[in-house]
Amino acid sequence: MTQKKISHKDIQAMESRYRARLINSLSGYKSANLIGTRDEQGQENLAIVSSVVHFGSNPPLLGFIVRPRKSRRHTLENILHTHYFTINAINRDFIQQAHQTSARYAKDISEFESVGLTPCYQDNFAAPFVLESNLRIGLVLKEHIIINSNQTEMLIGEVQTISLPEKAMMPDGHLDLSLLDIVSISGLDSYHTAQKVHRLGHAKPDQPVLPLTVEGKNFN
Amino acid sequence: MTQKKISHKDIQAMESRYRARLINSLSGYKSANLIGTRDEQGQENLAIVSSVVHFGSNPPLLGFIVRPRKSRRHTLENILHTHYFTINAINRDFIQQAHQTSARYAKDISEFESVGLTPCYQDNFAAPFVLESNLRIGLVLKEHIIINSNQTEMLIGEVQTISLPEKAMMPDGHLDLSLLDIVSISGLDSYHTAQKVHRLGHAKPDQPVLPLTVEGKNFN
Repeated sequence: MTQKKISHKDIQAMESRYRARLINSLSGYKSANLIGTRDEQGQENLAIVSSVVHFGSNPPLLGFIVRPRKSRRHTLENILHTHYFTINAINRDFIQQAHQTSARYAKDISEFESVGLTPCYQDNFAAPFVLESNLRIGLVLKEHIIINSNQTEMLIGEVQTISLPEKAMMPDGHLDLSLLDIVSISGLDSYHTAQKVHRLGHAKPDQPVLPLTVEGKNFN
Repeated sequence: MTQKKISHKDIQAMESRYRARLINSLSGYKSANLIGTRDEQGQENLAIVSSVVHFGSNPPLLGFIVRPRKSRRHTLENILHTHYFTINAINRDFIQQAHQTSARYAKDISEFESVGLTPCYQDNFAAPFVLESNLRIGLVLKEHIIINSNQTEMLIGEVQTISLPEKAMMPDGHLDLSLLDIVSISGLDSYHTAQKVHRLGHAKPDQPVLPLTVEGKNFN
């Protein structure tokens, strides 16, 4: 098996799209989500992101990264103005519509309408959810961070509401994502389904980890 | 299909491990990596993380989150002191060893040795790589951010070196992660392999996205 080594100098010399595809692939399988927002006039916006990350459970915090490109700033501006946004997991059956939201639509165009996904409002929440998504999360903005290294911005929100099919909730709180048909992204444009290998127990020093069973119930 | 709604109040009322399992599941499939470091005395450390995220390609930046728990601060301290660390993708064939690194080992114990993974040094890089990993990345610290909302810390590094089997590099720069046997994590403890659905072309307004072919070559 031929091993390839790539140096910092090699990376700098790459054509920019080639480099973007390579570096975007380095972080492995990434979560696939659509961010739903509305501006102060009620204009809806929907944007695909692969950078949603867990910051903590108490308080329940999720964040994501917004690239500094002008055309993709509608999501950022809407959240900074209204403070509300939704994270909607991408299911296998609407991958192409979700990917299509990455086109550079004008600000007065709703990506919901253009790509054929359905905005839905629930529990008086100020931002639109994606009706087709099996895992819908409503958040309120808690923190806005500018990354000095490249002027990228990160938004962190606190979870206000979660909506999902009850069957995916395991007795111990874990969600079985395979029952939700959720996909992952690799690189810029590759979409994947997942197959569980196993759940493993809490690790302790000098004790091998074993596949998880809780109170006689197999969680794998 | 019974739909479950969970409010902020419901989340606050949850038992803490139940809440941690649920909230950790919300971000979908997460990248599975081991962070390799060494302290100034040469003591090696290895820690599993599911929060590696892409910050930008030029310069090539990846970051991850370190929780504020005392026992897991060795990685953070080592990086703040030495400025170097490695990100090593977790392959299917060493999931259990990788998971075992999350046990609370004392600072003078090397997780490499305890779990049975092999430290390797290449290209005079100051931090240890995981020999068993099919995708090894060496980084230098660029930015250290404290998240005010919960005192979590984020470290961002610039990629200095990448090492992987050449067969995984597609002609356009994209990495085919399935050829590397890389896995993803969901929740706190669930490990998954992935199956590609498809790669999609660059999205443009008013033009449907199609599975990707480049110069007559099918990239799917």
